[in-house]
Amino acid sequence: MFEIDLTLNEPFRLESGEVLDEVKLRATVYGRLNEDKSNAVLVFHALTGSSRIGDWWNGLMCNGCALDTSENAFICVNYLGSSYGSTSASALKKRRQKGGKAELPIITTRDIVRTNVLLLEHLGVKKLKSVIGGSVGGMLSLQLAVDFPELAEHCVSIAATPLSAMGLALNHLQRQAIRRNDLELARKIAVVSYKSPRKFGERFGRNPNRNGEDPKRRRDDRFDVGGYLDHQGDLFRNRFEIESYDLITKAMDLFDLTDADISRVRARVSFVGISSDWLFPAADVRALRDRFVRRGVEARYHEIESEDGHDAFLSDLAATSRVLRHVLGEPDEEMTVASYVAHRRGLGQLRGCYKVL
Amino acid sequence: MFEIDLTLNEPFRLESGEVLDEVKLRATVYGRLNEDKSNAVLVFHALTGSSRIGDWWNGLMCNGCALDTSENAFICVNYLGSSYGSTSASALKKRRQKGGKAELPIITTRDIVRTNVLLLEHLGVKKLKSVIGGSVGGMLSLQLAVDFPELAEHCVSIAATPLSAMGLALNHLQRQAIRRNDLELARKIAVVSYKSPRKFGERFGRNPNRNGEDPKRRRDDRFDVGGYLDHQGDLFRNRFEIESYDLITKAMDLFDLTDADISRVRARVSFVGISSDWLFPAADVRALRDRFVRRGVEARYHEIESEDGHDAFLSDLAATSRVLRHVLGEPDEEMTVASYVAHRRGLGQLRGCYKVL
Repeated sequence: MFEIDLTLNEPFRLESGEVLDEVKLRATVYGRLNEDKSNAVLVFHALTGSSRIGDWWNGLMCNGCALDTSENAFICVNYLGSSYGSTSASALKKRRQKGGKAELPIITTRDIVRTNVLLLEHLGVKKLKSVIGGSVGGMLSLQLAVDFPELAEHCVSIAATPLSAMGLALNHLQRQAIRRNDLELARKIAVVSYKSPRKFGERFGRNPNRNGEDPKRRRDDRFDVGGYLDHQGDLFRNRFEIESYDLITKAMDLFDLTDADISRVRARVSFVGISSDWLFPAADVRALRDRFVRRGVEARYHEIESEDGHDAFLSDLAATSRVLRHVLGEPDEEMTVASYVAHRRGLGQLRGCYKVL
Repeated sequence: MFEIDLTLNEPFRLESGEVLDEVKLRATVYGRLNEDKSNAVLVFHALTGSSRIGDWWNGLMCNGCALDTSENAFICVNYLGSSYGSTSASALKKRRQKGGKAELPIITTRDIVRTNVLLLEHLGVKKLKSVIGGSVGGMLSLQLAVDFPELAEHCVSIAATPLSAMGLALNHLQRQAIRRNDLELARKIAVVSYKSPRKFGERFGRNPNRNGEDPKRRRDDRFDVGGYLDHQGDLFRNRFEIESYDLITKAMDLFDLTDADISRVRARVSFVGISSDWLFPAADVRALRDRFVRRGVEARYHEIESEDGHDAFLSDLAATSRVLRHVLGEPDEEMTVASYVAHRRGLGQLRGCYKVL
C-alpha cells in the first residue's frame, strides 16, 4: 500500500456555492495500478472510517480475498471534513471564523464524491472497474454513479438508502448530544442503531457489567450492555473530531435520489442489504433497487445474512466476503470463509498477505 | 370518578431494606365498587402516566367500553416516585439529604406493587377481577401476580417483558442524558424507541420541518421528524420530574422473572404483544408466555396488530380495544371501533359517558 497527500491546486466550490480556498486529501492505495490504469476500484469508507481500508476491512482485502489485491488496485480517499488526514471539519470551521460566528459549512455527498474524482484524476484513473461502499459509503457509491455516469462500470452499495425518518431522527438526536459537547453519547446512540436487538441479547443479555458492578444494589452501577456502550463512547472520543461527526451526519441527512438522478445512472448496480439491519432495513434497500430497475438501470439485490445488524458489513466479514465475492463475480466461496477463519484464529496464514500490502 | 390521597400510617420498608418514614399515594377510582367489593380492576399506568386512566385510555374506559365502568370499578395508583400526586422522587431525594450527598433510593417493581396493595386494603378490596397494564404497567401486573398470587384472578400484561439488552441500553442512554440535566433528550430517545420506523416514515418521511425550516440550506434547520421530537421533548420537560424519570427507568431495568417467580403465579395470564413493537418485540412477549406455560401457568398470547410501535397500546385505541374486549371476554367487537371512531370525530356520543365518570 501507499499513501497520498494531495493538496488541490485550485479553489474547490461546494454544492452550497461556498468556495474553499484550500483542500487537502489523504488517500491510500492497496495493490498496484496497471499500466493503462484499468484495474482501479474506488472504495468509500463509512462514517468514522479512514482511507486505510486494511484497518476496517482487514480480511476482506488481500491477495486472494474478495477484494483481490493481486488483480486490482483499491483506492480510498478520506472524506473532506473527516478526521483522518483530509481537510478536517474543525479546520474548515476555523477558516470561516473571519466572517464573524464560526460555523461548519454544509458538505454534501456530491462534494465528497467530487474530491474523490479529483484524486482519481491525479492518479490518471479515468475508469473504475467498481466503486464500493457500505452505509454512508454506500450512499457515496450511488452518488458517484449518478454524478459521473461514465466513470464506474459497476457500483456496489451496501446497507444504504436515503435516510428514512427513523434514520433522520437518530442523526438529529446525535447532533443534539453534540451540541452539549457530548460526542460519547452521540456515538452510543449510533452504536445502538448499528446493532441488532438479538445480537445485543446474545452478547450481553441482562448480565451486570463484567467489571463487577451490581445494578441491583447501586443506582449508578450498570448492566453489561451499559458498560459496553460507555467503553465505545470513550474509545471514540479519542479517535474522532466532534466537528467531523457533525459535518458527516449532516451530509448523510441530505443524501437523496430523485427519479431524474436515478435515470442518469449507467453503471450496473449491486444493492446489498443486511438481514438484521434496522437502520437501513433490507426491505428498504430492495425497494430502492426496484426504483432503479423501473428507471431502466441494470440493478440487482443481494443480502448479507447476519445477526450483526447494520454493523455486519464491518463485523461479520465471513458473510460479507461471501456476498462480495458473489457480487464481484468470484466463484470460489469456500476459500474466503476458511481463510477468514484461519485469520481469526491467528494462524498467520493471512498475516503474510497483509505484510505484502 | 373520585380521587384518593392516602398517607400510609406506618413506615414503608423498601425491597432494598431502606425505610421510608412517610409515603403518600394518589389514586383514582372510576365506576363504583359494589357492596362486596368484588368488581375491582387494578390498572397500572405507564412510565410517564398518572392515576387518571381517563387521561390516557380515554375511549377505552367508559360505560360500554372495553374497560366497562357500568360493571367494574377501575382503580389506578400513581407510582411511588412518580410526579403525579404520590410521594415524588425529588421528595424522596430531599429527605435522604441528611445522610450527606443526596441520592435517589432504588425503588423496585415489588415496592410499587406493595404500595398498590396497601391502597387496595384501604378500600377494603381483597380480590381483583383483573390487573391490567401496558409497558412498565405490564411489568407491574406480572409482578403483582408473582408477589400476591391470590389477589388477582386475571392478569393482563401488554407489551412487557423483562428488559432485553437493547431495552437496557436505551434506558442507560436516557439516564446518561439525565445526568447532563437533559430530560428532553432522554424523552426524545424514548420516543424513538416507542415508534415504528414505518409509522415515522408515513408521518414524517424526509419532509423538512413544517414550520418552514430548510435543512438543505442551513446547518441547524431540521427535518420534520426532528421538529416533532423537539416538540415532544419540550412538552415533557413541563410535565415530568427529571428525578422521577431516573427512578422509574431504574425500576424497569431491575424487573426480572425467575422460574421460581413464575411458578408462584395462580392468576390466569393474558400476554398481549404489539406487532410493530421493537422495544418489547412481540416474539419476546410470546416467548415469555411460553415460559409461563412451561411452569404450569394458564397463559395465553394475543396480539395488537398495529403499525404504531410500542406506543400502540396508548395511541391505537381501536386495535387495543378490540384485543382487550376479547381478552376480557366481551363479545361485541364492532361497537368499540364504532364508538371510538365516533369519539374521535367529536360527535359527542361518548362525551356524555365521560361526564358520568
